[in-house]
Amino acid sequence: MDMLEIIRKKKHARVLTKEEIEYMVAGFSRGEIPDYQMSAFCMAVYFNGMTDGETAALTSAMARSGDMLDLSRFGCASVDKHSTGGVGDKTSLIVGPIVAACGGVFAKMSGRGLGHTGGTVDKLESIAGYRTSLSPEEFFAQAEKCGIALIGQTGNMTPADKKLYALRDVTETVDSIPLIVSSIMSKKLAAGAHNIVLDVKCGSGAFMKDGESAHALASKMVDIGKACGRNMAAIITDMDTPLGFAVGNALEVEEALALLRGEDIPDLREICLALASELIAMCRGTSAEEARAMAENALCSGAALAKAREWISAQGGDIDAPLPKAKAAREIRAEKSGYISHMNAEAVGRAACLLGAGRKTKDDEIDFAAGIVLLKKTGDFVREGEALAVLHTSSEEKLCAGEREFLSALEISSEKANKKKLIIDILR
Amino acid sequence: MDMLEIIRKKKHARVLTKEEIEYMVAGFSRGEIPDYQMSAFCMAVYFNGMTDGETAALTSAMARSGDMLDLSRFGCASVDKHSTGGVGDKTSLIVGPIVAACGGVFAKMSGRGLGHTGGTVDKLESIAGYRTSLSPEEFFAQAEKCGIALIGQTGNMTPADKKLYALRDVTETVDSIPLIVSSIMSKKLAAGAHNIVLDVKCGSGAFMKDGESAHALASKMVDIGKACGRNMAAIITDMDTPLGFAVGNALEVEEALALLRGEDIPDLREICLALASELIAMCRGTSAEEARAMAENALCSGAALAKAREWISAQGGDIDAPLPKAKAAREIRAEKSGYISHMNAEAVGRAACLLGAGRKTKDDEIDFAAGIVLLKKTGDFVREGEALAVLHTSSEEKLCAGEREFLSALEISSEKANKKKLIIDILR
Repeated sequence: MDMLEIIRKKKHARVLTKEEIEYMVAGFSRGEIPDYQMSAFCMAVYFNGMTDGETAALTSAMARSGDMLDLSRFGCASVDKHSTGGVGDKTSLIVGPIVAACGGVFAKMSGRGLGHTGGTVDKLESIAGYRTSLSPEEFFAQAEKCGIALIGQTGNMTPADKKLYALRDVTETVDSIPLIVSSIMSKKLAAGAHNIVLDVKCGSGAFMKDGESAHALASKMVDIGKACGRNMAAIITDMDTPLGFAVGNALEVEEALALLRGEDIPDLREICLALASELIAMCRGTSAEEARAMAENALCSGAALAKAREWISAQGGDIDAPLPKAKAAREIRAEKSGYISHMNAEAVGRAACLLGAGRKTKDDEIDFAAGIVLLKKTGDFVREGEALAVLHTSSEEKLCAGEREFLSALEISSEKANKKKLIIDILR
Repeated sequence: MDMLEIIRKKKHARVLTKEEIEYMVAGFSRGEIPDYQMSAFCMAVYFNGMTDGETAALTSAMARSGDMLDLSRFGCASVDKHSTGGVGDKTSLIVGPIVAACGGVFAKMSGRGLGHTGGTVDKLESIAGYRTSLSPEEFFAQAEKCGIALIGQTGNMTPADKKLYALRDVTETVDSIPLIVSSIMSKKLAAGAHNIVLDVKCGSGAFMKDGESAHALASKMVDIGKACGRNMAAIITDMDTPLGFAVGNALEVEEALALLRGEDIPDLREICLALASELIAMCRGTSAEEARAMAENALCSGAALAKAREWISAQGGDIDAPLPKAKAAREIRAEKSGYISHMNAEAVGRAACLLGAGRKTKDDEIDFAAGIVLLKKTGDFVREGEALAVLHTSSEEKLCAGEREFLSALEISSEKANKKKLIIDILR
């Protein structure tokens, strides 16, 4: 086999064999196939696409390129959740306890955040004492006993995907559905869960800006996951505006716990219940209605909160202890009266990042207390001078930068905008 | 400016500015733009093409990336000829003297051959004493005095093209018309002549296998050359079968001299006169008919032969001295009776290469005496056992390899094939 022939076939929209794709992934991983051939190949894929068979072969080859988490001891109970990345997305902290309270096993390694979206591990680290690294024995024992174990990425998972993604990032070949699908799904396959629910975000704060491309991506991921032997579901959700009211690590933990304690945060609650229901239906083999009832009951009865307490305590944290508080805070007030017609989620994420809640580069330190609490959201009416949000950070200087960015995210109009549907579609 | 933005624009079929293209060529030449970005860009060009303006900017930027030959001292008299590469193509050795006899200045650096096509400088080196390198002073003085100076490539011409071509060669991005055009035309612009005729070969022995793609390539090259201020013409010629009867360095020199001495070699004569006429019309400003009459007269009167003698003698050679003779020779005989319906020029070139006439790699030594003399060509009738060709080489072993390859090039059929048109089109 020969990489030039592989590029040529893809250039002429011919279908690659499983063997050719495996040869390519192995050669690229080992550094035998140079970056300049792989980038030409990726550009040819951008134009000519890949069949489902090719995408499944690429996904599987990348999944097998490094360590894989073996969750087979949990049989059909293991569950995993993936979000394509949103602003204010703290759903893992809620979905995990709900599903574990219903018999699922949420044993997960989670990534850190980069840019305007946060990472679950970063959020958990804002809880004093929470250990994001456990030995394999501790990890499995805890998952077995408690139904949740959530730690940072360890080992050398999907190195082929890491190498390929880094190359795509600098060759303008990120936005190709089969390449996105194989990147995400290779990590999910390596993560080992039998049941996977995807939260595909759509809108200004998401990678997929429109419903059509979000649907295409979700549908392919579901197909490829099934082709690789997993139970799959995907929810397409609106990310035109941040999820919930809190953006920033400790602020999001606080909001997640508030929801588990019974506070009503409608959009966050709805998405968490939808994600949890899909996982429960798959791992328990129940109908969608039964799964939904189980999820709601776990949340309302306090079973999910108890599960969260058990889990976080097992990993060294205490959900009743105070969270980090920011040194500086500022209320942002409306410059005019009207309806909030648009709140650009990506810009809100950037504002939180400027306040210290995120990383611009891999080596940046996070300020766990930094972030934004929204007081108004899209569709709300505000009077001139009324408070829109509170910014939390460590210095006056950062407040100014954050305020400018936050205000740029807002549009206030005299007409009330139509409320967007929160859950756009569910694919199974 | 930013290479990622340049790739993105091309990926979305948007038009690059001259400044962007110059930035890219300069950055790539200096090694600041990595190969993996350039190859992704080339693949995007393969799919989305380039406008004439973009192609002209790329051509011009690559032409200016290294040394350029300044022929401005010859005003409008300087001429150049480029062939896209054929088998048995010794036209430069004939066109040069004809045009010089009619007042043109053929001051040219010429390449060496690689693979199944031969290089003019290799052919000239088979003449004992011929100096393929002259000092700049000698080169210009001889061109001034004699009207021809033909030497090997010196200096650092079009390094950006060399680097880009090497990358395209290993990323399956060679077959893109704007990239081919800019590669060829950048070298022609750097070579400095005011009047350029292109011989675009078409058929089994050529890079362009069909008339349509040859026409598209020729037409773009003419347009780009004109856009860059040169007088341009292109002839599309059939290269389904070798040109003339001789393939191999000394054998081709012998055939070229034979034509200059008055021997009738119809296909070779016709193409040489067509190419020479185009150059004469451009550099003398005459009509096509006048130019043709001048070219024919130079050939028939012996003026072109005298010019060839003067030129070669000025560079240290003697056209009346014996040329190298091969140690071993073998007649190839027809295995059955019939018409030669096809003679694959590329395979004949490969056979000559196996006999020692060409290089498989840059460092191979050439056997100047090696090659093939055809006795029959496409369309001829042969009887079983009749001689088809004579192979010339240095050993019995090479004769066997050459014979196998040569026979694979032939098809003998009971029906007479339609003769193909030699000159398919002329573009001005």
